Amino acid sequence: MTDELHNLRVNSDRMLDAFNELSQIGATGAALTGEAVSKRDGGVNRPTFSEAHLAARQWFREQIEKAGLEFRTDGAGNHSAVLASAGRVGGGFRYAENATQPSPPYRDQTLLLGSHLDSVPNGGRFDGALGVMAALEVLRTIKDAGLRPRLNLEAIDFTDEEGTLVGLLGSSALAGHLRHEILQNPRGGREALLEGMERASLSDESMLSAARSKDSLAGYLELHIEQGKRLERAGIDIGIVSAIVGIWSYRLSFLGRADHAGTTTMDERRDASLGASAFTLSAREIVMNDFPNCVLNIGDMEFTPGAFNIVAARVDVSLEFRSPDEEEFQRLAVSLLERAKQEARRFGLELRAESLGRHSPSLMSEKIQHALADACNNLGLSHVPLISGAGHDGQSLADICPVGMIFVPSVDGASHSPREYTEWEDCVNGANVLLQAALMLGM
Amino acid sequence: MTDELHNLRVNSDRMLDAFNELSQIGATGAALTGEAVSKRDGGVNRPTFSEAHLAARQWFREQIEKAGLEFRTDGAGNHSAVLASAGRVGGGFRYAENATQPSPPYRDQTLLLGSHLDSVPNGGRFDGALGVMAALEVLRTIKDAGLRPRLNLEAIDFTDEEGTLVGLLGSSALAGHLRHEILQNPRGGREALLEGMERASLSDESMLSAARSKDSLAGYLELHIEQGKRLERAGIDIGIVSAIVGIWSYRLSFLGRADHAGTTTMDERRDASLGASAFTLSAREIVMNDFPNCVLNIGDMEFTPGAFNIVAARVDVSLEFRSPDEEEFQRLAVSLLERAKQEARRFGLELRAESLGRHSPSLMSEKIQHALADACNNLGLSHVPLISGAGHDGQSLADICPVGMIFVPSVDGASHSPREYTEWEDCVNGANVLLQAALMLGM
Repeated sequence: MTDELHNLRVNSDRMLDAFNELSQIGATGAALTGEAVSKRDGGVNRPTFSEAHLAARQWFREQIEKAGLEFRTDGAGNHSAVLASAGRVGGGFRYAENATQPSPPYRDQTLLLGSHLDSVPNGGRFDGALGVMAALEVLRTIKDAGLRPRLNLEAIDFTDEEGTLVGLLGSSALAGHLRHEILQNPRGGREALLEGMERASLSDESMLSAARSKDSLAGYLELHIEQGKRLERAGIDIGIVSAIVGIWSYRLSFLGRADHAGTTTMDERRDASLGASAFTLSAREIVMNDFPNCVLNIGDMEFTPGAFNIVAARVDVSLEFRSPDEEEFQRLAVSLLERAKQEARRFGLELRAESLGRHSPSLMSEKIQHALADACNNLGLSHVPLISGAGHDGQSLADICPVGMIFVPSVDGASHSPREYTEWEDCVNGANVLLQAALMLGM
Repeated sequence: MTDELHNLRVNSDRMLDAFNELSQIGATGAALTGEAVSKRDGGVNRPTFSEAHLAARQWFREQIEKAGLEFRTDGAGNHSAVLASAGRVGGGFRYAENATQPSPPYRDQTLLLGSHLDSVPNGGRFDGALGVMAALEVLRTIKDAGLRPRLNLEAIDFTDEEGTLVGLLGSSALAGHLRHEILQNPRGGREALLEGMERASLSDESMLSAARSKDSLAGYLELHIEQGKRLERAGIDIGIVSAIVGIWSYRLSFLGRADHAGTTTMDERRDASLGASAFTLSAREIVMNDFPNCVLNIGDMEFTPGAFNIVAARVDVSLEFRSPDEEEFQRLAVSLLERAKQEARRFGLELRAESLGRHSPSLMSEKIQHALADACNNLGLSHVPLISGAGHDGQSLADICPVGMIFVPSVDGASHSPREYTEWEDCVNGANVLLQAALMLGM
């Protein structure tokens, strides 16, 4: 890259203005006034296709048009700003007049930059929004510099990343992974999905029409807050995501016998609570001692019959664990199920294990990780490879194009909460890494 | 007592006929035919004031009248057979013509013998029913022998012992312990109580009118199945109950923090599931190692927010423990709460403990225990003092008159289940102990 490109930086003030304006849409804390992003400003409540979310989408569209960028939408409700490649004319989706076919280096491929404008209920104002604002700012910066990229650059707001309705909805649709059955039985309920789609003038059919061809995509870059404490603790500027963890989930049922809690002696009981409790403690030990890259959660237990005076005949344990590595998943699952069986046996119980889902880890592109590291080095920013423990739209895209993610520090690791906060300087650092990587990959 | 009294025995066949007839009312197993009580005959479903329960009550009334005994009922729906004392005329509740006041040994006091005809939903046919049939048989045996007791003898079927509606309802009402507030907020719900009372032509007012004076009661004796395995294991014929355990119950809340189950490292979590699980295991150890007379149950846990992907912010643990000794309750409660605090601290949690009830242990009368032991010795039956881990109507009465209970072996300890079974020989042994004790106390 030329020195001109190396020295290009986003406009921090302009990006902050936009971020602050956006943060007021659906704001749950004090209304934002002035330019300072302070911790006390609070969060946003923008579940997918809520009034606030629709308002944020409309506002984004106006920002795109004001910036002189092309607005694009699709059947999944994804909204984008497009800066057309040098191979195109007038920024539109037409090839140059003198070319009937694009040819390298002016192939009609798109480098996506983005994130999402929806939030979890009563979430923070950085999760998703920062990535969309940074992507828009990157396009404005490149456009203002009078540069024409080799690839189309597209700053995209993906629909329903958080899963109020479906989860990773817009990115799955774009990647061609969405299926009719998913829309029929969505995680937020079919009725909520139908109502939401109606409010956004979308339908099952339009959703399924949003798939793009693999060949049209050169890659996907996303800037996001870390949602954890690792960068903050280590005092490092940038996390370069190496993988988004997969998630396996199980329902483990410890089966004992309902007995009178007064007349049955302690040693005669087959008390399902004991197996479930012993497993809860030992599962944590297994992960902490032998699988330091993994996390595990027992987020719920259901007792049957669930009475004060009856020994628990059955306890159903909601277990999920996450790993960045497929082979590690296999080993961890074997360890956990073996231990669950042992704990059941120890207390005279039976064990039933039902697998409820296996989402594989998504590896980030090596090439993009190198580009991100180079960008950090050029910018004088410290960086470290990180595994994302949370899901992101990049998961949807990782098997059809190269994907990369940039994390910036989360103060106190707060996430999905109005306490969520990232220092503005860190936000700008992340946006500059996004800009530099986009220039390396897209010019 | 005279040899004639010592040699008196219940009529086993007559009692068996009655027991088998009763077992068919609300039977859930194979209909009973013939005289044999076999294990395969199954249980009964006679929740309080259900159709089957009302039918069993009506059948009992007919049995009483057929036997030439006086039928008595009260505002709580308790049904009794009465064999009037020698101080009365004609078996009615009138004093002898030549006496305006009863005087010792012909005071107008009543020795109650009984149990209950209601069952838990899909319960067994021995729990309660055996005690009522034995009490009736004792009265018939004494009447047939032409004996007139010093005390009125009353074979009583107490309303709603099992607690479909209130629990120990008839005995509490008779003992004067029932309160308006209890009827307003009963354990089975106010609506069920109102419906039940209507079906039995009872009301709140009638219930509260059933209290008898302390002076009118000479004592209460009950024959019941053990509902545990201690007699069977030890090969002993009769258990003489020394105390009915008290029950203390708590809701223990372990309070942590809801965190993202993917992005929060294992060592950063304040996972409420860990405190609840560790306590479940150590509470059992405390009871088994240091409180061999006590039992403890953790019959339910409720997780908040209770999602696969969110670390448990709060787990509410339903804890109850039972002891026959008030001082031991205090020590056990201190041990358990101290341990719960330690486990909470160990995992960075807070603990909140809410006491939900303290029912004191009920001591059985020493005098009656001696009488029961003498009766066993006279009958050549082995016996052992036992603590009842289950609640019984005797609890209601223990503070207003001497109470005693006789346990007979439960095969495999089965209780509140169609698998409930006691050998008929053991049932008859128990009835003879009841008879002999009634003679010792009542003649």
